[in-house]
Amino acid sequence: MTGPRVALLHVGDELMAGRVVNSGGAVLAQALSGAGFEIVAMEILADRIDEMAAAMRRHAASADVLVVTGGLGPTPDDLTREALAEAAGVPLVTDPGLLEGVVRITRGRAPEANERQAAIPEGGASFANPVGVAAMLRVEIDGVPAYALPGVPTEMNALLHESLIPDLGQWFPDVRGPDQAVVRACGVAEAVLVERLGDLLARDREPDVGVTVADGIITVAVRGTGAADHAERIAGVLGDDVCGVGAYGLPETILALLRERNATVAIAESLTGGLVADRLLSVPGASASVVGGVVAYQQQIKHSLLDVPVEVIGSEGVCSETVARAMARGARERLGADYGVATTGAAGPEPEADGTRPGDGWVAVAGPDGQETAQFLHRVGDRNAIRRLFATASLDLLRRALAQ
Amino acid sequence: MTGPRVALLHVGDELMAGRVVNSGGAVLAQALSGAGFEIVAMEILADRIDEMAAAMRRHAASADVLVVTGGLGPTPDDLTREALAEAAGVPLVTDPGLLEGVVRITRGRAPEANERQAAIPEGGASFANPVGVAAMLRVEIDGVPAYALPGVPTEMNALLHESLIPDLGQWFPDVRGPDQAVVRACGVAEAVLVERLGDLLARDREPDVGVTVADGIITVAVRGTGAADHAERIAGVLGDDVCGVGAYGLPETILALLRERNATVAIAESLTGGLVADRLLSVPGASASVVGGVVAYQQQIKHSLLDVPVEVIGSEGVCSETVARAMARGARERLGADYGVATTGAAGPEPEADGTRPGDGWVAVAGPDGQETAQFLHRVGDRNAIRRLFATASLDLLRRALAQ
Repeated sequence: MTGPRVALLHVGDELMAGRVVNSGGAVLAQALSGAGFEIVAMEILADRIDEMAAAMRRHAASADVLVVTGGLGPTPDDLTREALAEAAGVPLVTDPGLLEGVVRITRGRAPEANERQAAIPEGGASFANPVGVAAMLRVEIDGVPAYALPGVPTEMNALLHESLIPDLGQWFPDVRGPDQAVVRACGVAEAVLVERLGDLLARDREPDVGVTVADGIITVAVRGTGAADHAERIAGVLGDDVCGVGAYGLPETILALLRERNATVAIAESLTGGLVADRLLSVPGASASVVGGVVAYQQQIKHSLLDVPVEVIGSEGVCSETVARAMARGARERLGADYGVATTGAAGPEPEADGTRPGDGWVAVAGPDGQETAQFLHRVGDRNAIRRLFATASLDLLRRALAQ
Repeated sequence: MTGPRVALLHVGDELMAGRVVNSGGAVLAQALSGAGFEIVAMEILADRIDEMAAAMRRHAASADVLVVTGGLGPTPDDLTREALAEAAGVPLVTDPGLLEGVVRITRGRAPEANERQAAIPEGGASFANPVGVAAMLRVEIDGVPAYALPGVPTEMNALLHESLIPDLGQWFPDVRGPDQAVVRACGVAEAVLVERLGDLLARDREPDVGVTVADGIITVAVRGTGAADHAERIAGVLGDDVCGVGAYGLPETILALLRERNATVAIAESLTGGLVADRLLSVPGASASVVGGVVAYQQQIKHSLLDVPVEVIGSEGVCSETVARAMARGARERLGADYGVATTGAAGPEPEADGTRPGDGWVAVAGPDGQETAQFLHRVGDRNAIRRLFATASLDLLRRALAQ
């Protein structure tokens, strides 16, 4: 945990006002931590040249590297180039190679914007953007390398891996990533996990352990010498509740279990409406194991595409164990998969027509040879928090069925 | 833009290392900006008592309010209570009412954790958490009110609206939210939009205008006196490309158009696999207009659930205009909706078996009376960026069909 110290500065009134979430900061921090750098600051800056330049100079006095994102677009509130130049005490100049590329990409449709996007601080370097217009810039502020990357996630991500990390490798040739390990758990409350892990979570020693919770999944991150062994001890204590290790989240774990068993899955979703399919299909290569799914939002779809008997819906209600099991079976059979996973219930904010409370619902899994499981859940939160928690619960039920 | 100045501090090594995205910061900033406060800092802090306390004191010297999130959980790395007490120069004491509530919620399963979560800085106040264990705390640091909220989004959100904003209203009774207006556009490049809007985007005047892009949607946010009129002028210039105003994003706009026409929609997704359904169904009340959908990931599902003729898939390939149109028609007919919307193509990272490049695909819409449109797209980015851009494009095609 003692690599070169990096300060991350994220520019934009839209970030400060909360209209946009700073997901780029997390992406950068994770990549740079993994490469052996220590993140010592992550700060949002408003679109004001003087404040930006002041923050750049302040962080240049205490960090070894500055990385700035955002403010490189063509609009008048994109001011990162100007602020970098002011912080470095140099004028802006046109980079002819950059101008040529920018004009080519935009087909010259926006000449004034092009001119602005081809400006760099004098003495700085530019790195071409492989998926967009705004280049990455580098300039020294009081001898500290300061990089600027576009805030658009796809563009930032491409430049991060293709240009920033390689260029940092030239400035800091001896930096290596630390030992890191991650264990994820599902189906257990955080306070209970803390009691079960006890001293394994102790503070202020090597390796360092951090616990976070999101969408019903607890992530235990271990970093430093001995990380792998320590993570293995943690996983040993958590047993069946471990739903992923290392780069494997819950969806990746499920897809690996399906591949091992040479099995496929189909999805039937009511209240999660597309989220379960999305979680699995966001993983590259998922198409080999995921046949497809049905979003059975209105009742007749549960019958017409999933063969849930109309009389069962009528007698038991859509939020019932019988309907959840029938949906999982229907997905499996109608889509021709080995496993079916289903969700049904009320996401809110209003109660369902039949009186089901928001947050109440069922998840179910059907497997080969008539194997079935189902679970009732009550989850608290707004509509989308409830939908995400149900998606996690249905996937965890599938994982447990596959792991048997 | 001159309300009381709020500094937002977000605590957690997981945020600093990028394992978790600071979405809570955006939620808080948006709610507090809307209530008339000015966000002047948004900063991530590591789990270290001395650094946290120092940052709290530093911001207390220049801001009128501090809001701290995170670090209130039961694990040993949750240190916000200790840091608040140190910054305020008081000891931690047990809040008996809080302890009683905490023990009741956790059924006493975790006594040590309970004791920690019932501690508050002496002289401070606690506000019960309606959806979790960790209470909101308030303590004064050099006369500045400093609040601490849990980082778990559902809990933070509940306390933000039920306790933080009402309590701030007592401290700052004269604060009112500014005029604000938002216009969203789709199907136009940012640089082109900038040229079209020209002086309407000029800097340093009232109202203030900010432009951001995410997932293919451009958001123009206007804030200050005359915001509504200015936004109307912007919307007038953008014309058909406006896909949402005010609280209406693209999904809300579509759902409003469907309700106006008393029409329903069904979804057929290949490469977006669940994302289009999720975007629509994340909106409360969507169930009235969205019948359901089919995630037709493997070829046979396109045939068995959407009636896409096998010979068409064979001759034209899955990434073709004919298949996209047939999927949209099939969704409409098989699910019994007025409109069908479809996506098909290659999300990557690998090319499809038939050689389709990642980022290539089609979106299509089928409506009543045989009305149909389709559009070819090539989008650049990683797998999930491409999936999100296709989801946006398919929804925008649906919006344009509905608006005709």
